[in-house]
Amino acid sequence: MTSGVLPCYLPLGRAERGVMALEVTMEKFVSLCKRRGFVFQGSEIYGGVGGFWDYGPLGVELKNNIKGAWWKAVVQERPDVVGLDAAIIMNPKVWQASGHVETFADPMVDCKACKRRFRADEVARGREPEAAHGHMVDISGLSCPECGGELTTPRMFNLMFRTYVGPVDVEAEFTRALEELTRDDRGLAQERIRRLKEELDRATVYLRPETAQGIFINFDNILVTSRKKLPFGVAQIGKAFRNEVTPGNFIFRDREFEQMEIEYFVRPGEDEKWHQHWVEERYRWYLRYGIREENLRVRRLPPEELAHYAKDTFEIEFLFPMGWSELEGIANRTDFDLRRHSQFSGQLLTYFDEKTGEHIVPYVIEPSAGVDRCFMAFMLDAYHEEEVRGETRVVLRLHPALAPIKVAVLPLSRHEDLVPVAHRVWDMLRPHFMTQYDDSQSIGRRYRRQDEIGTPFCVTVDFDTLQDQAVTIRDRDSMAQVRVPISNLVAVLKERIQEGC
Amino acid sequence: MTSGVLPCYLPLGRAERGVMALEVTMEKFVSLCKRRGFVFQGSEIYGGVGGFWDYGPLGVELKNNIKGAWWKAVVQERPDVVGLDAAIIMNPKVWQASGHVETFADPMVDCKACKRRFRADEVARGREPEAAHGHMVDISGLSCPECGGELTTPRMFNLMFRTYVGPVDVEAEFTRALEELTRDDRGLAQERIRRLKEELDRATVYLRPETAQGIFINFDNILVTSRKKLPFGVAQIGKAFRNEVTPGNFIFRDREFEQMEIEYFVRPGEDEKWHQHWVEERYRWYLRYGIREENLRVRRLPPEELAHYAKDTFEIEFLFPMGWSELEGIANRTDFDLRRHSQFSGQLLTYFDEKTGEHIVPYVIEPSAGVDRCFMAFMLDAYHEEEVRGETRVVLRLHPALAPIKVAVLPLSRHEDLVPVAHRVWDMLRPHFMTQYDDSQSIGRRYRRQDEIGTPFCVTVDFDTLQDQAVTIRDRDSMAQVRVPISNLVAVLKERIQEGC
Repeated sequence: MTSGVLPCYLPLGRAERGVMALEVTMEKFVSLCKRRGFVFQGSEIYGGVGGFWDYGPLGVELKNNIKGAWWKAVVQERPDVVGLDAAIIMNPKVWQASGHVETFADPMVDCKACKRRFRADEVARGREPEAAHGHMVDISGLSCPECGGELTTPRMFNLMFRTYVGPVDVEAEFTRALEELTRDDRGLAQERIRRLKEELDRATVYLRPETAQGIFINFDNILVTSRKKLPFGVAQIGKAFRNEVTPGNFIFRDREFEQMEIEYFVRPGEDEKWHQHWVEERYRWYLRYGIREENLRVRRLPPEELAHYAKDTFEIEFLFPMGWSELEGIANRTDFDLRRHSQFSGQLLTYFDEKTGEHIVPYVIEPSAGVDRCFMAFMLDAYHEEEVRGETRVVLRLHPALAPIKVAVLPLSRHEDLVPVAHRVWDMLRPHFMTQYDDSQSIGRRYRRQDEIGTPFCVTVDFDTLQDQAVTIRDRDSMAQVRVPISNLVAVLKERIQEGC
Repeated sequence: MTSGVLPCYLPLGRAERGVMALEVTMEKFVSLCKRRGFVFQGSEIYGGVGGFWDYGPLGVELKNNIKGAWWKAVVQERPDVVGLDAAIIMNPKVWQASGHVETFADPMVDCKACKRRFRADEVARGREPEAAHGHMVDISGLSCPECGGELTTPRMFNLMFRTYVGPVDVEAEFTRALEELTRDDRGLAQERIRRLKEELDRATVYLRPETAQGIFINFDNILVTSRKKLPFGVAQIGKAFRNEVTPGNFIFRDREFEQMEIEYFVRPGEDEKWHQHWVEERYRWYLRYGIREENLRVRRLPPEELAHYAKDTFEIEFLFPMGWSELEGIANRTDFDLRRHSQFSGQLLTYFDEKTGEHIVPYVIEPSAGVDRCFMAFMLDAYHEEEVRGETRVVLRLHPALAPIKVAVLPLSRHEDLVPVAHRVWDMLRPHFMTQYDDSQSIGRRYRRQDEIGTPFCVTVDFDTLQDQAVTIRDRDSMAQVRVPISNLVAVLKERIQEGC
C-alpha cells in the first residue's frame, strides 16, 4: 500500500486541529455509567477486583446492540464472511504455535531510580546470550540500561491466565506435596512430586488472550463446511483475558474484555488491496453508527511498532478523554498464523485453487475491535450538554440502533384515567421494542432522565388521549413533538428507529 | 406449592407413553453438526481438549438466535425483568459466600471393585467427624461403604477452574521456589516460600461455575439504578466453567458452557406462587419456539435431590437420545444467597418496602437454562427424515426465528442471464435477513442442503424471472411454492418469518 492513497481515509487534518470534540470528562462519564446502570465495578460489594467490570441493565443492552450492529455489517450484509464462536479454553499448543507462550511470559526487572521496566534477558544480553524466554536470568551486578540505576530482583510476568483442566486438583496436590518437603524428609516425596509435576504440565491450559486463534485453528473446518472461495472472512465475538500490568482508564484496558475480530483470507499479492478495503470499511462503520469524524483518525504504525507477525498495521483511533487511543487495529498478518498452526499441528491448512491446481496458504487481514472500547467511544461521542430554558440538559445522542431503550412510555400523571391507557400502550410496544415505563415526578424530569440514557423517543399519554386515541411522540434530539394515533404508533416508531440502520 | 396444581404443567401422561419421539440418534446428530458447520470439536487440529466445543458458522447463528429469543421473552417483553452482564472472574469471596469453595472442592476416593466414587470425609465419618471440606482425610484401613471393596488413595477434586490475577506469575515463582527445595538447602528458602504462598492465596480467583452469583452481588446496584419494585427479576446470559468429572454426551455436559439465568426477587410468602408462574412461563417458551410437547416433561425434585439452598426445584426435561435429561432447572433459592452475601460482604442487601416501612430480604426464584442444551434440544426436536419421491429428505423444522439462515437464493442454473439477476435479489435481501447463495449442482440437491440446515425459505430465480420480474418462494416444511414479484419479496418474507415470533 503506498502512502499516496492514504489521505482519503486519514482525516488527520481535521482531527489535529486540536479541537477537543468531547464534552465530557472521564469522571463525569464514569459517574453517569454507574448512576444510570451502564457499568458497575466488578464485585463491588467485596471491594472489587482490579480490571473487571459488570455491565448493568442499560449497559448490557448497549453492548448487545453494538455487537449486533457489527455482526450485521460484517456477517449478515456481506456475501463473503461467516461467523464462528470458539471456546475460550483451547488446547495449549495453540498458544505455542501463535507465539503467546513465548512472548507473553518473561522475567522482568524494574529500575528503582527511573521506574522503567525491562525484560531481564535484554538487560543480561551479552552475558547470557542463550537465555530463553520464560526462564530466570541472573542479573546480579547489572544496572539499568537507561539511567544506570539499581534494578529490582527479576520477577516472572505472564499476561496469560493459566488454569488446569480436569476435576482432579493436581495443582493443590502438587503444592501440598511440595510444602510437605519444607517439613518432612524430602527423600520420600521426590518421586511423587516429579509425577505430579508431569501431570500438572499436561493439565495446563490458558484463557485465550485473543479470539483470533480460534479462527485459524478452525480454518479447514470452516472452509469445508461453508464452501467459501477466496477471498472470504470469518468473524467472531467473544471474551478474552489478559493479566494486564496496569489495567486502567475505566473499561478501556481491562483484564476480561470482549473482542470483535475478523480474519479475512486473501490470495498473497492481493493482501494490500484488501487491507485498504478493510480500513475504509471499518472506518465507515463507526461513522454509520454516529461517531463524529473529528473524533476519529487512522494511524499507520511505524515499522518499530509492528507486531512480529505483521507486515503492516493501521489503527483506528478515537479521541478519548485521556487522548487519542486505539479503538480498532487492522493488521496484515500475512500467512504467519496458518503456517505456524500447520507446522505445530501437522495438519495441512491450505486453500486449493481450482483454477491453477495449486494449494496456497492465504494471507490474512485482521480487523480487530474491542467491544468495551467501542462502548466507551459510542457513549462518549454521544454525550452532550445543552442549555434548555435556563437548565442544563445532558443528552446521549446515541444512534437509535444502539440506544439501550428505544421508547419510553410516560403518562402525563398518575391519574387513574391515564395509567390504564398508558399501560395498554406499553403492552402494545413491548413485543416490538426495548421500552421503559416511567410515571414518577414531573414530565420534564422524566424527559431528562430518558435524554440522559439516550432514549430516542418518548411517548406521552395525556388527557387528550382519552378523547382522540392519540399520543405524543417526543424526539430526543430536536425535542419536537408530533401527535400520532395509537393504532399507527408501532409502525411510525419502527420507521423512525430504522432510519439509517 | 401443592401437588394438586401440578398436572396442568406436568404433561407426564403423554411423555410417559414410551413413544420415542426423536427420529435421530446421537451419532447422526453429531455427524450432521460437524458436516454442516454447526459444532466442531474444540482445538480439533491439536487432538481436541476434553469438554470444549466450537460453534461453526451455522451453529453460532442458531446459538445467537436462541439467546435472542430468550432475551426477548424474559427481558424485552416483560415489564418486570432487566438484564445484566457481569464478569466471569469475580472476587473470590463470592464463592466463599455462595458455598462453592466449600462444596465444589473435596478429596474423593474410588472403589476399585464397584467403581463408585465417594467423598473421603463421608467414608471416614465416625473416625474423623470434624474433617473439614477441602482437607485431606486419612482413610487408611477403611473400605468401600457399598461393597466393602478396596479404596484408592484420596485425590483432591475441584469443580472450579482456579487462576491467578495479576501479571506477576506468582504461581510460577512459588512452584520454582518449592522445587528448589528438593535440591538445595531448605533452611534458606522457607521464608521466601511462606511469603509467596501468601501472595498466591491473595491472587487466587475462579472462573465462575454459574452466572447466578453475578446477579446477587449486583442486587443493590440494580435496585437503585433500575428503580424496580418487588417482584422483579434480573436476567443474564454468559459463559460458565466447571471442571466436570465426566464431560460427555456431545455438548450436553461440557466444561465451558453458556447459561441463561433469571433471578426473580419476590416477597417471602409469595415465592410459591411465583415459582409456579415461572415453571409455566418457561415451559411455554419451549413450546413457542417449536419443541413438541411429547418431548418435554416437568419433574419435581424429591427432597433428597434438592441443593442445600433450595426449598423446592422443578426441572424441565427433554427427551434426548440418551433419555430424559435436564434442559432447565427452576429453583426456589429462598433468601439464602442475599443473606450470605450480606453476611460475607458486610453490605446490606435488602429491599425497602415503602408501604410497611420494613427492610425485607426477598426470596428468589431462579429459572436456569443451558444454552448448549437448548441448542441440542431445538435441533434434535426439529430433525425429521421423510420419504420424498423415493428419496430420504432430512429436514430441520426449526422455528423461523431460530433458523440460522432465513432465506437461500438459488438461481436455477449458472446461466449467464440468471446469475446477475440472482445476485441482485441476494443483494436486496442481505440487509434484512441472514441469507445464503448457492448455485452449485441441481436445484433439487440445493433444496435438500437447505432443508438439512433448517432454512425456512428458498427463493428461486428462473428464466421466467427475466420476463415477469418475479421469483418462486419454496416453503421448507410443505415444499409448496408460490410466485412473488421481486418488488414484494422482502415484505412477504418478513411477514412469513415473523409469523409466530
